[in-house]
Amino acid sequence: MIRIADNLQITNKRVSEAVERMDLAPIQELVRLMEKNGAQAIDINSGPLNREPARKMKFLVEAVQEVTNLPLVLDTANPIAIEAGLSVCKNKRIINGVSLEPKKIETILPLANKFDAEIIGYLLLPDGHVPQSLDERLSLAIQLYQIYVDHGLDPKKLIIDPVLVPVMWQNGIVQAKDILDVIRQLPDVLGYPVQTVIGLSNLTAGQGYQKEKLLLERTYLSMLASAGLSMVLMNIFHTETVAVAKACNTIMNQTVFSWETGLI
Amino acid sequence: MIRIADNLQITNKRVSEAVERMDLAPIQELVRLMEKNGAQAIDINSGPLNREPARKMKFLVEAVQEVTNLPLVLDTANPIAIEAGLSVCKNKRIINGVSLEPKKIETILPLANKFDAEIIGYLLLPDGHVPQSLDERLSLAIQLYQIYVDHGLDPKKLIIDPVLVPVMWQNGIVQAKDILDVIRQLPDVLGYPVQTVIGLSNLTAGQGYQKEKLLLERTYLSMLASAGLSMVLMNIFHTETVAVAKACNTIMNQTVFSWETGLI
Repeated sequence: MIRIADNLQITNKRVSEAVERMDLAPIQELVRLMEKNGAQAIDINSGPLNREPARKMKFLVEAVQEVTNLPLVLDTANPIAIEAGLSVCKNKRIINGVSLEPKKIETILPLANKFDAEIIGYLLLPDGHVPQSLDERLSLAIQLYQIYVDHGLDPKKLIIDPVLVPVMWQNGIVQAKDILDVIRQLPDVLGYPVQTVIGLSNLTAGQGYQKEKLLLERTYLSMLASAGLSMVLMNIFHTETVAVAKACNTIMNQTVFSWETGLI
Repeated sequence: MIRIADNLQITNKRVSEAVERMDLAPIQELVRLMEKNGAQAIDINSGPLNREPARKMKFLVEAVQEVTNLPLVLDTANPIAIEAGLSVCKNKRIINGVSLEPKKIETILPLANKFDAEIIGYLLLPDGHVPQSLDERLSLAIQLYQIYVDHGLDPKKLIIDPVLVPVMWQNGIVQAKDILDVIRQLPDVLGYPVQTVIGLSNLTAGQGYQKEKLLLERTYLSMLASAGLSMVLMNIFHTETVAVAKACNTIMNQTVFSWETGLI
């Protein structure tokens, strides 16, 4: 299970100001810290970038790849920003992402082929709503897979995000458990070792106590790992969650164990 | 997932001295503390009790049930001790346990029927060795189930322990992952909602760093819970592990969630 750090966000004031001023230093300092804390990929959450999307995403990608060789995840709904970012990206790249929304399939999906990128596909209804059952989620995965193949793309480069919802939602816990089953069943349903990703912080979005939120996230993360999750988008500064993610890899990777080599 | 506390052990000097002196107070103080810390059943690990097994196990059972209504797990290989303990036990009772070892089937299994007790069955070879593969474990489970049925017992009262081995063993991690699959597959293999139990501390038995051991135990416990584990035998004074066990129940029990009602 690969740890994608979600900490480079435009909603972070230091990040947004650095982007406005085209100031490399704060971005690069943050990225170095993310890698030091266990990031194995960097999500660049630029938001919609309504003004100067190409210039700003290029700045972000170039700033980040100057200080790390980790894969970059270009996280925006703006296809202009994605295309510009990919055009300068030298690291391994992932587009975040598409769904069955027609506009996204039309404008974002072709970029995966053009720039040889992996792409995250959300299990959302075409109108953007969250599906309510296990069967509905598996059906959406089949549709996404089919569209991917129809566009001549390698399905191994599709990373499916079953879209975690907050446990605070009325049926949030039921959906959290369904999502474990989705991850476990996708390889059988689609017939190959499907890559999957989860945005962990979604689980505890909304009001609540931080200590209990993190406990629930860590516990659920172990369950996701044992269901076979490939990647987790997470706050890389949650040290205990990172430790649990490493312990998950120790158990799931089936290597000979010694305390000396430690957790990975 | 029910938390069975493993802290009442004859290897604990305070416990062994209390048993020798027939002194209720230290035992009862410990049991009250175990319940306060989240125990949902009490394992009475008396050891073999070579001298005065009946008298000592009766003392232990009576001491414990004076201060708690929790189910009691009579944990000894000595059938005389088990029979004596069950003869005075008023709480719900579990025998710990049998395996395919002929002597145990002959002397311990009949006590389950006689005293209307649940009984833990270990997935061990008849000679006491640990099986090495998933298939071997499932085959042992089928044999245990068959013997149970042949003795006229209700299979719902059989609790299967797949026998966790230390991760430090050469293939310990492989076996830990196999055991997740055993727990997940048993209901399909035996055709009913099979009860299962794991002795969690086995995972990290041997040398190692305490902090990493507990991290690995907590992570693996979440995986066990998501595989459907019914009961966990654990150190109830490991507060963080108890918190994780409660968070597991929150996720697996599929109730409407609120931070106010908290973790159970």
